[in-house]
Amino acid sequence: MPEIPVVRNIMSVNDALAAAVRRQLDAAGVLALNIMASPGAGKTSVIMRTVEALKTEMTIAALDGDVTPVDVEKIARTGIRVELINTGGNCHLDANMMTGALSSLDLTGVDLLLVENVGNLICPATFELGTHYNVVIASVPEGDDKPYKYPAMYRGADVLLLNKIDMLAYQEFDLAYFRHGVEVLNPGVAFLPLSARTGEGFEAWLDWVRRAVARQR
Amino acid sequence: MPEIPVVRNIMSVNDALAAAVRRQLDAAGVLALNIMASPGAGKTSVIMRTVEALKTEMTIAALDGDVTPVDVEKIARTGIRVELINTGGNCHLDANMMTGALSSLDLTGVDLLLVENVGNLICPATFELGTHYNVVIASVPEGDDKPYKYPAMYRGADVLLLNKIDMLAYQEFDLAYFRHGVEVLNPGVAFLPLSARTGEGFEAWLDWVRRAVARQR
Repeated sequence: MPEIPVVRNIMSVNDALAAAVRRQLDAAGVLALNIMASPGAGKTSVIMRTVEALKTEMTIAALDGDVTPVDVEKIARTGIRVELINTGGNCHLDANMMTGALSSLDLTGVDLLLVENVGNLICPATFELGTHYNVVIASVPEGDDKPYKYPAMYRGADVLLLNKIDMLAYQEFDLAYFRHGVEVLNPGVAFLPLSARTGEGFEAWLDWVRRAVARQR
Repeated sequence: MPEIPVVRNIMSVNDALAAAVRRQLDAAGVLALNIMASPGAGKTSVIMRTVEALKTEMTIAALDGDVTPVDVEKIARTGIRVELINTGGNCHLDANMMTGALSSLDLTGVDLLLVENVGNLICPATFELGTHYNVVIASVPEGDDKPYKYPAMYRGADVLLLNKIDMLAYQEFDLAYFRHGVEVLNPGVAFLPLSARTGEGFEAWLDWVRRAVARQR
C-alpha cells in the first residue's frame, strides 16, 4: 500500500493560508513578527517593554497564542489592541489560526503586529504564519546548549534575542559556545543580547523593529 | 457528516500501549519516572545529580526523548545505561515510543528508570507513558506564573520540583503566588524546592525517590 503523504498536504495547506495572511498584512501596511521561545524565556516581557517604548511612535497590535489568557491580560494593560488565539491544547500557532484571528482584529492604522507564539522550541518552527520575520528569544537561565538542542528553531530565526543577560553574573553561561552554535546553524543572523527587565541592550532591538516597520510602510 | 473521533482513538491506543508498558515495568520490578519540564528548566541536571547520588545504592537506567543526542551524551557520562528516543520533531514522548525503547534497553536488575520527556509544558501532559509517577520540574527563572499558564501539566504532576532556587536571590519570584497556583490545581502535591547546581534541597528529593523505589521492589 503506498504511503499517504498527509503531513505534506497539511503543510502545503498551511503554506497557502500563510501566503494569504501575508497578502492581507502587506495590503494593510502591517509589519508582523512571529515571536517564539521556550516558556519563561520572556516573550511577554519583551513584548510589553517593546510596546511601552514604541507605542507613541507607531500603532501596535498583538496576537497571543496560548492555552490560557494570562499573558493576553498582561499585554492588554499596555493599552494596545490584543487578541487571544486559544490554541486549545495545540503547542503552536498555524496559519489557519492567524486567518481566524485577523478576521476579528482591526488592522486599520496598525504599523506593527506582534504575534506571541506558544512557548515551545519545537513545533512552532515548522508552521509558517504569514508573518514577515521570525524572532527567537533565548534566555540565559535556559543554558548555553539550546542552539545545539533545537536546531530547527535557531535555523529559522531572522533575529535572535538573548534575554536575561542580567543573569550572566549569577550562573555559568558560555556566551562563545552559545554564539558558535547559533553561527553554525544560522550564519550572520542578527544577534541581540538584552534584558527586558533592566533594559540593557534594548535600544538595539527597538532600532531593529523601527527599521523593519519603516521598510514595510 | 458526523465528526470522526480520531483524537479519542489515538488516545485510547496510547493508553492501551501505556498499560502494557506498565505491566512490563512492574514484572521487571522497575520504578519509572516521567520527567517533564520546559526546555532549560534542568531536567538533565536533575537527572545527572540524582544518578550521581544514588547509583551506588541502586541500578539506574534512563531514556531521553529528544530531537538531538546532546543530553543523552551527557547522561551516558555518568556510566548508567541510557538510550535516546529520537522523537523526530515530535514535541512529546508517547507509549509507542516507550514500547520501542524498552525492546532494546536491558531492564535486568534495574531499580529505577528515569524517562526524560521532551522539553515542553503542553503536549507531554496528555500522553501516558506507562511510567509510575509524573515528575514536573519548574524553575525559578521561568517565572512564578507558570502554574496559571500551563494548568494541565501542573494538574498531572505527582511530584513538583522547583529547581534553581539559588536564583531566588537575584530575581523577582513570588513563591507564595507560585505555590497558590500549584495548590489550586493540584492540592497537596509533593512540592520540593531545590537546586541541582548547589544541591540545596536535593536530599528531600532523593528520599522521595528512595521511598518510591522501595515501594516498587
